[in-house]
Amino acid sequence: MSYQQTIEIRTPGRGMTEITADVALIVRAARIASGIAQVFVQHTSCSVIISENADPAVRRDLETLAGRWAPDADPAYRHDTEGDDDMAAHARTLLAGTSVTVPVGKAELLLGSWQGIYLWEQRTAAQARSVVVTVIG
Amino acid sequence: MSYQQTIEIRTPGRGMTEITADVALIVRAARIASGIAQVFVQHTSCSVIISENADPAVRRDLETLAGRWAPDADPAYRHDTEGDDDMAAHARTLLAGTSVTVPVGKAELLLGSWQGIYLWEQRTAAQARSVVVTVIG
Amino acid sequence: MSYQQTIEIRTPGRGMTEITADVALIVRAARIASGIAQVFVQHTSCSVIISENADPAVRRDLETLAGRWAPDADPAYRHDTEGDDDMAAHARTLLAGTSVTVPVGKAELLLGSWQGIYLWEQRTAAQARSVVVTVIG
Repeated sequence: MSYQQTIEIRTPGRGMTEITADVALIVRAARIASGIAQVFVQHTSCSVIISENADPAVRRDLETLAGRWAPDADPAYRHDTEGDDDMAAHARTLLAGTSVTVPVGKAELLLGSWQGIYLWEQRTAAQARSVVVTVIG
Repeated sequence: MSYQQTIEIRTPGRGMTEITADVALIVRAARIASGIAQVFVQHTSCSVIISENADPAVRRDLETLAGRWAPDADPAYRHDTEGDDDMAAHARTLLAGTSVTVPVGKAELLLGSWQGIYLWEQRTAAQARSVVVTVIG
Repeated sequence: MSYQQTIEIRTPGRGMTEITADVALIVRAARIASGIAQVFVQHTSCSVIISENADPAVRRDLETLAGRWAPDADPAYRHDTEGDDDMAAHARTLLAGTSVTVPVGKAELLLGSWQGIYLWEQRTAAQARSVVVTVIG
């Protein structure tokens, strides 16, 4: 049994936008008692991730570290078609991943208390992003 | 068709604990001939990963590299509520991920010969961790 | 409902080989209208990833960054049984992951326009790799 819905998320540029409530709504609509929910973003310069949902400083520190893992405007990059943040965005997306899968029980996301689902935008400019949520059970 | 079970894993602090046998038991109990098994940890400072299962030096070297990717007590961190290893643990969890999904065939995990499933604890102190295993087919 | 098939991919050594068409064929054969496709590689020194599929410079830049994240022949490594690229390959596989899961709609992969599925070989020598594709709906 499966249920699928695509949502559009507007991001204000680089940073994390919480989408836990959006995904939870779809999971409830799916009425699948037990299974998994897969949350997938159809782009190569932003990620869907699970992160700590209590202290905003965690998200700020992850940005700091991402700037070391894949700096903007690195002189070694050959790909810079869309600007200084272009290649950095692709590389951070590779590290953080394109989707997360979360178990579902009693038609609810089985997240831990401190886990939230976030769309992590890696481009510096605002974007519209398509996220496909599939619930299977 | 789906089958779900939550297990508690006690970790002795930072390091990898193999859980392949625990997951394989649940997969067998599920009696689902063909499909996938998803292994998800409900915490933001440890990961479920697949790693080489033969030479312990691989796991030791991964710890060494993780110390470069996200050092303890980095002066740039703003989040240090629970100590010097707190933010490093969140960042390493982001890089290594919160879950793995493994194909299932004939009610067995279809892992390669050298693949094991590990809970990678990122906090320095011992912890109790909840892992949700969902088998779908 | 599930459908599973294993394919062998020959890689020419370190670098990315696109396998989107191979996976799409299996998804069509599965005749599952809506669900997910999971693509899993049974090895610990190569990854299945999603990457930008238009500009080869993106893949070249990812190789450059991977060389910083986990350099070959790092003097800190204890594991070097199979050569200078051995431990680097395991570490890059941890960062990039062992599998991807892609939503399926109308028996097609629901990838974005710029997303491709790649087998990312991390060993410098040519290899034969087993990839298990499971479609669930």
